[in-house]
Amino acid sequence: MEKKLSLVGAGPGDPDLISVKGIKTLAQADVVLYDALVHPELLDYAPSKVLKIFVGKRAGKHSYKQEEINALIIQYAFSHGHVVRLKGGDPFIFARGKEEIDHAESFGIPSQVVPGISSINLAGLYGLPLTTRGINESFWVVTATTKSGELSGDVELVAQSNSTAVFLMGLRKAAAISRAYELQGKDWLPAAIVSNGSLENAQIYRTTVGQLEATISENTVASPGIILVGESIGEDNYLATIKSVPHYVKQI
Amino acid sequence: MEKKLSLVGAGPGDPDLISVKGIKTLAQADVVLYDALVHPELLDYAPSKVLKIFVGKRAGKHSYKQEEINALIIQYAFSHGHVVRLKGGDPFIFARGKEEIDHAESFGIPSQVVPGISSINLAGLYGLPLTTRGINESFWVVTATTKSGELSGDVELVAQSNSTAVFLMGLRKAAAISRAYELQGKDWLPAAIVSNGSLENAQIYRTTVGQLEATISENTVASPGIILVGESIGEDNYLATIKSVPHYVKQI
Repeated sequence: MEKKLSLVGAGPGDPDLISVKGIKTLAQADVVLYDALVHPELLDYAPSKVLKIFVGKRAGKHSYKQEEINALIIQYAFSHGHVVRLKGGDPFIFARGKEEIDHAESFGIPSQVVPGISSINLAGLYGLPLTTRGINESFWVVTATTKSGELSGDVELVAQSNSTAVFLMGLRKAAAISRAYELQGKDWLPAAIVSNGSLENAQIYRTTVGQLEATISENTVASPGIILVGESIGEDNYLATIKSVPHYVKQI
Repeated sequence: MEKKLSLVGAGPGDPDLISVKGIKTLAQADVVLYDALVHPELLDYAPSKVLKIFVGKRAGKHSYKQEEINALIIQYAFSHGHVVRLKGGDPFIFARGKEEIDHAESFGIPSQVVPGISSINLAGLYGLPLTTRGINESFWVVTATTKSGELSGDVELVAQSNSTAVFLMGLRKAAAISRAYELQGKDWLPAAIVSNGSLENAQIYRTTVGQLEATISENTVASPGIILVGESIGEDNYLATIKSVPHYVKQI
């Protein structure tokens, strides 16, 4: 029995947005440890006899701490062999993948990473350009849920830049995000919120950064959601009023 | 015959890093227009009878201008039906996907986007964390090849921040990148270069931001490559010496 760990990115929601390599890796799993945002259909790519264990956070149920997940990886690698950690999005984009690899390697368990399409890529799915030639050349990806619970200090610098900001896990931090831009006199900047992106119940709201919180509360926007802020987001001359556009780019 | 345009992300190089949705879309193509960094095996997912036209840049051959590609999309949508634009990485991350969609829609051709794993995700493939809890909460993605040919002015703000910088198409701008960090007294920051990431001939070099240009020229690092700069990149206590680590995370 060969002990090993594969961190596999499940993609942003739609089960067809996993990679071919992700599927091939699942087919060779002896145990799958999966997170809350992983589409259930993806588990069918693993052989039916293998253990499939939910280790995510779900309201009203036991939530696994990172230390517990690390311990399960070691336990199952020794008892079953190939552990696949199936994580929403990409395993290395705000997903603590490095901690899991380091822990496994300290027990002599080799690891590999299978990248995944991240929620960052949802902007493109709905035709929202993160960059536009002549306007900006960069985008800035920030997790609004930090270790300390505070908004990252870097947000001030982001608001000073021409960069498009992509806030992951940011719906509850909308007021703080607005404030950072208001301090720069930029509350007029176009913003968009993508909720449940790539799934059938996706909702896309377009607004301004100053109106983020109002947009979220008036529409009871659901997690998971990303927030995009920047001039490039308004580049199709969309009027800065609140609007739900589930299929901004017509889906074929 | 139904006219439509699908922009499909081919992923960062390894043909198994395309999404399942990407493959399904290729299988329904009437024409494929593909870029230089697309793996040739991916073309086999399209029916053998369909036209497969190279529209990328290749040394010594005709390079298509964006306007010519836009015109080809319209021409083939009207003559053949479903045009698949197969683009390296993600179609909306520095890939001018929005321009192609807007042009098609101005001719009444509906479009969809199939996101792809971007070269940003290559950091994770080689175990390089873009963010580390307790060190930083953001990363910043910039194309070093801008419309004007200059490095983005935002790089000064990034050099002031705790953000990890990800420079795409940046190998030729290494000296300017180093200078921006030197001005902040940060030439000691850990840096990494990933060349041909996810392919068999991948090369990973670890250095400091001050030594970027020397590392690239001494090792004749080949395009395409990405440059990563930030404290998080050195978080495994790697010594700041130059080293090639093609398989930093042991591949299984």
